[in-house]
Amino acid sequence: MKAKALLSTTTELEVQFFDVDSMRVVWHGNYVKYLEVARCELLKLFDYNYLQMEASGYMWPIVDMRLKYVASARLSEWITIEARLVEYQTRIKIEYIVRDKATGAVLTKAHTIQVAVEMSTGEMSFNTPQCLLDKLAPFLEKE
Amino acid sequence: MKAKALLSTTTELEVQFFDVDSMRVVWHGNYVKYLEVARCELLKLFDYNYLQMEASGYMWPIVDMRLKYVASARLSEWITIEARLVEYQTRIKIEYIVRDKATGAVLTKAHTIQVAVEMSTGEMSFNTPQCLLDKLAPFLEKE
Amino acid sequence: MKAKALLSTTTELEVQFFDVDSMRVVWHGNYVKYLEVARCELLKLFDYNYLQMEASGYMWPIVDMRLKYVASARLSEWITIEARLVEYQTRIKIEYIVRDKATGAVLTKAHTIQVAVEMSTGEMSFNTPQCLLDKLAPFLEKE
Amino acid sequence: MKAKALLSTTTELEVQFFDVDSMRVVWHGNYVKYLEVARCELLKLFDYNYLQMEASGYMWPIVDMRLKYVASARLSEWITIEARLVEYQTRIKIEYIVRDKATGAVLTKAHTIQVAVEMSTGEMSFNTPQCLLDKLAPFLEKE
Repeated sequence: MKAKALLSTTTELEVQFFDVDSMRVVWHGNYVKYLEVARCELLKLFDYNYLQMEASGYMWPIVDMRLKYVASARLSEWITIEARLVEYQTRIKIEYIVRDKATGAVLTKAHTIQVAVEMSTGEMSFNTPQCLLDKLAPFLEKE
Repeated sequence: MKAKALLSTTTELEVQFFDVDSMRVVWHGNYVKYLEVARCELLKLFDYNYLQMEASGYMWPIVDMRLKYVASARLSEWITIEARLVEYQTRIKIEYIVRDKATGAVLTKAHTIQVAVEMSTGEMSFNTPQCLLDKLAPFLEKE
Repeated sequence: MKAKALLSTTTELEVQFFDVDSMRVVWHGNYVKYLEVARCELLKLFDYNYLQMEASGYMWPIVDMRLKYVASARLSEWITIEARLVEYQTRIKIEYIVRDKATGAVLTKAHTIQVAVEMSTGEMSFNTPQCLLDKLAPFLEKE
Repeated sequence: MKAKALLSTTTELEVQFFDVDSMRVVWHGNYVKYLEVARCELLKLFDYNYLQMEASGYMWPIVDMRLKYVASARLSEWITIEARLVEYQTRIKIEYIVRDKATGAVLTKAHTIQVAVEMSTGEMSFNTPQCLLDKLAPFLEKE
């Protein structure tokens, strides 16, 4: 059962030659880029991209990342990356599913966890910064 | 408490400019490359690098990878990556600790899990291939 | 004056966080990826992507690449990459112009040169392979 | 005939799996990283790495880069990268030769050109900054 998501989005990408390894599949480390592309699309939904994070006085480094590889993406295939915001209190947790676009087959499941760090002090914030709650307010109301 | 390792090795690297992001620290996805460099050094210890894997009729794709980010590596710093073989039966599990070389401070903890896939059939092997056991035999005897 | 192009195409991309360096601009080496994305779009126009190249018995390694950097792309900016096929006899020469999408300002000018290598022999082909001429025939007739 | 170099250095690297493409050779764009590793070693010779550049008030973006690919590096091969400082007045020009370490065969020839940009103004400097001349003075005296 999937965790309930406050927000989700699906991004599409074509597998490029430079991401493919000598086994003719995407090198496992390159999925981290795909997650980032999808995460950025998700953050855009509530107006909180990297530049907006900085403007809010916080950065949100990733402190935990896990990827489970089920099947392989190949050159010139299109993939979809679903990103789902499943936690936003104290920390941001996003879950991802990478799929083969043509067949819908699951290729990779992943999650990332980010915490807020105040840029002025370099200190990790143990409460959710108000700026994030403000950004998410329109979506929280809908629930 | 760390799992007991059959084999371990420590690799050193200097953080390069192209691995550093706009926060002036190594982009989190680039640690996956550091793990691979260390893993390849570990595999060399028992004569089982990627080309030798192929020659043995197996590939060993990564099916699970987790990284926990504790602190950040910066441009021009030297890091050490300790890689430890903690499982070799049925699957290969390697644990990693990335440290700041100068201070010894832990930057990242990680693990990867690889399974054997027979290249002729594309089938996953549920038993440890004999070729791996043969490669590890000299180290198993010492235990 | 620009060389006359048999075919051209323009691709759009958003600059991702993982492509940006500590000077907060795209690392110069990452433009090579942008060129490849655009080149692949150009090759698609005449049904000759990497997989189709292989099927035709040839690979087309890049033997010469030059980039002139005029200005810098920044995080979250959209860029356009124009790719123009300016030579196809004996070798493939493609010229590129990377622009800031919003302003049209030129960021990078580049070219790549590829030669045909017969896969069965590993020998470089000094004449244009017939397969390439066949692929380009519909466009050559229009001229 | 090679241009005379004020300073030169040779760096060694082992080709990693993540740099190799589906043709089982190093992807052409990854040589840009190898050049950077060698360039950084060269800059260290006169105490002018990226952090020292910044401390001197200048950055030195690459404005021109050319690579000629002669032969291919393969997985697990060791390569050497010779970097030679051939111009330092007005601009920095470095020439590179990448070789197969085992055979000495030339794989890639390249050059990069960098110009000084004053960080406080963002203006390109048309004269060589005094800080660079000071760094190079010990080597200029020897000539």
